[in-house]
Amino acid sequence: MAVRLPRGFRAGATRAGIKPSGKPDLALLVSGLPASWAYVATQNRAAAPSIHRGRALYAQGGALRAVVVNAGNANCATGERGFLDDRRMAEVAALRLGVPVEEVLTASTGVIGVPLPVEKVETGLPQIELTPYADAFAEAILTTDLVPKVAEAEVEGARIVGIAKGSGMIHPNMATMLAFVVTDAALPQEALREAWRGIVDRTFNQVTVDGDTSTNDLALVMANGAYGAVPLEAFFPALEAVARELARKIARDGEGATKLMTVRVVGAGTEEEARRAARTIAGSALWKSALYGNDPNWGRILAALGNSGARFDPLRVRIQVQGIPLYAGGALPFDRERASQAMRAEEVEVWVDLGEGPWEGVAWGCDLTEGYVRINALYTT
Amino acid sequence: MAVRLPRGFRAGATRAGIKPSGKPDLALLVSGLPASWAYVATQNRAAAPSIHRGRALYAQGGALRAVVVNAGNANCATGERGFLDDRRMAEVAALRLGVPVEEVLTASTGVIGVPLPVEKVETGLPQIELTPYADAFAEAILTTDLVPKVAEAEVEGARIVGIAKGSGMIHPNMATMLAFVVTDAALPQEALREAWRGIVDRTFNQVTVDGDTSTNDLALVMANGAYGAVPLEAFFPALEAVARELARKIARDGEGATKLMTVRVVGAGTEEEARRAARTIAGSALWKSALYGNDPNWGRILAALGNSGARFDPLRVRIQVQGIPLYAGGALPFDRERASQAMRAEEVEVWVDLGEGPWEGVAWGCDLTEGYVRINALYTT
Repeated sequence: MAVRLPRGFRAGATRAGIKPSGKPDLALLVSGLPASWAYVATQNRAAAPSIHRGRALYAQGGALRAVVVNAGNANCATGERGFLDDRRMAEVAALRLGVPVEEVLTASTGVIGVPLPVEKVETGLPQIELTPYADAFAEAILTTDLVPKVAEAEVEGARIVGIAKGSGMIHPNMATMLAFVVTDAALPQEALREAWRGIVDRTFNQVTVDGDTSTNDLALVMANGAYGAVPLEAFFPALEAVARELARKIARDGEGATKLMTVRVVGAGTEEEARRAARTIAGSALWKSALYGNDPNWGRILAALGNSGARFDPLRVRIQVQGIPLYAGGALPFDRERASQAMRAEEVEVWVDLGEGPWEGVAWGCDLTEGYVRINALYTT
Repeated sequence: MAVRLPRGFRAGATRAGIKPSGKPDLALLVSGLPASWAYVATQNRAAAPSIHRGRALYAQGGALRAVVVNAGNANCATGERGFLDDRRMAEVAALRLGVPVEEVLTASTGVIGVPLPVEKVETGLPQIELTPYADAFAEAILTTDLVPKVAEAEVEGARIVGIAKGSGMIHPNMATMLAFVVTDAALPQEALREAWRGIVDRTFNQVTVDGDTSTNDLALVMANGAYGAVPLEAFFPALEAVARELARKIARDGEGATKLMTVRVVGAGTEEEARRAARTIAGSALWKSALYGNDPNWGRILAALGNSGARFDPLRVRIQVQGIPLYAGGALPFDRERASQAMRAEEVEVWVDLGEGPWEGVAWGCDLTEGYVRINALYTT
């Protein structure tokens, strides 16, 4: 695809031998200038050493120059040694690039509980060829994702490029979502951090594949200023659009998924309730199964809504699937065959009006398929 | 099986024609004496009229004489008419039994959004033959449960019998858990209500099949005093044992399940954290898939734990599956083939020590199978 990175960024990857498949698995993303950055990481209490280290760097408030990522080993639940190995990964990258180790972030995804073969990182890192393109990096950070995920935008001359991996399984462990967004716009770190928190809440945090949060998730944005300043009111919406596109791509590539589901909740009493309601519907195993079977089973949407904690009166709620009204305070007559046919699509939109207030929220998910079960049960051990 | 009800209780069922299959679908459970009672119902905001009516009766604090249950139609999301139909169902039962309508509880399970054919209830109710046995009632309240669920206990001469239905699907809607426990012990209503709340929290509320809470769930206990008083300190543990046995049976009969999972969390900082941790592990789609595949994938248990909100230090956590230690602050060496073999069982126990405090909690669940997806996706519409 050849996606050019914003000015001043380079990236690359190599086959370090961490993935049993022998595919590229060690990747580096570098800014020629110190970059302001913002970062949101998993809330999982069993978080990996890379997450703990990232949080500490974030709290220090310094600039960032590089991210080194290994795919194949989460370096999680690896005891005290895991923390040393994670730091070593950062040191090797810092040495290669000639930058302070506190300006190098680490990220890992893959098997849990197996020590990181850090000597493979030491051998592999010097072999990485850095180029102005995102492609090799986007490919190397994948686990069992089916496709690389890249999104881009331009704002008055400044460029934004986002790269993500989604929910794929490496034996014997869990999916991890990683997102790296880079821009050559000049942005004050404080403004970037404040905006990023909200953007992540409205995009990556609204994706659900199976309700399991990984120990290694993170979403990063780096702004190196190589282009110069741009108006924040134009920049942040473009940044959010890039994050949203990555979020959609992650949901679409969920394990075993055959389709992308977008849930749009309007008329909520608060923004948080709108988002929570959308997430709960997108995450309902019963509705996700119905989606797979092309069954316009609005009762499951209503029941999921009832579990979300959002306030509503069932007599005022309205539900549409693919634009077809199914429920409005009570069952509506509809052509079941036509509705089922409309659900046989790559993308299915669920629209719910709570009839309570002015707030809206969107979430993304996918269907629950026999393929999901097979990937996570039968094709392991 | 012929399970005799406690003294003074009778029950029966008939084929009212509500289930498309023509199976028994209208059931009555009656106490000859006014009974003290306690009741916990779904938190779902889209709760059915029967739930709203039950809550109002509960708040009035009067005695209970009977429960009338229809299986086949949840009478939920049926608009204003649903409330009238629900009350009519209670009235017809009250007329037949010659008791005040405020002493008759209703319960419904089945399809959402379709008006209840209340005339079938009117025709069917007089045909119900009441007997001193639980069996016909236990059979009629099922939807796609595979087996009736009954449990019993005796406390110093008083008897306890519990009857439940679990998670089965009726096209096009969701599973519902209903539990009815009756005893001939004499119990003060206040003491019963206080104890029941805790018992339900430790038993029925610790069951998870797919994370979707129904609009029609309820768990009821009735005590008619026909036997006389028994010591509460002996009675409540026996009542809890009956509830626990029903909870286990519901989990084992989860949709598509091939095995029962019991998750026991010890060493938690609070009881609520212990229970939440156990529930989160039992509900993890990733771990449930691994369970199906007999994969001793403890990383998924640790990751689920990390999402539960319970406090712990990963370096102090211990995890066992079927009594085999897999993790103790780090990966333990274990025979993967032997552990997988041990998971090929009807019941699998997960044991987790958080290493934080003295509290324990148990949850029950089942594996996530291709059968679950098929039941809920492919075999509908």
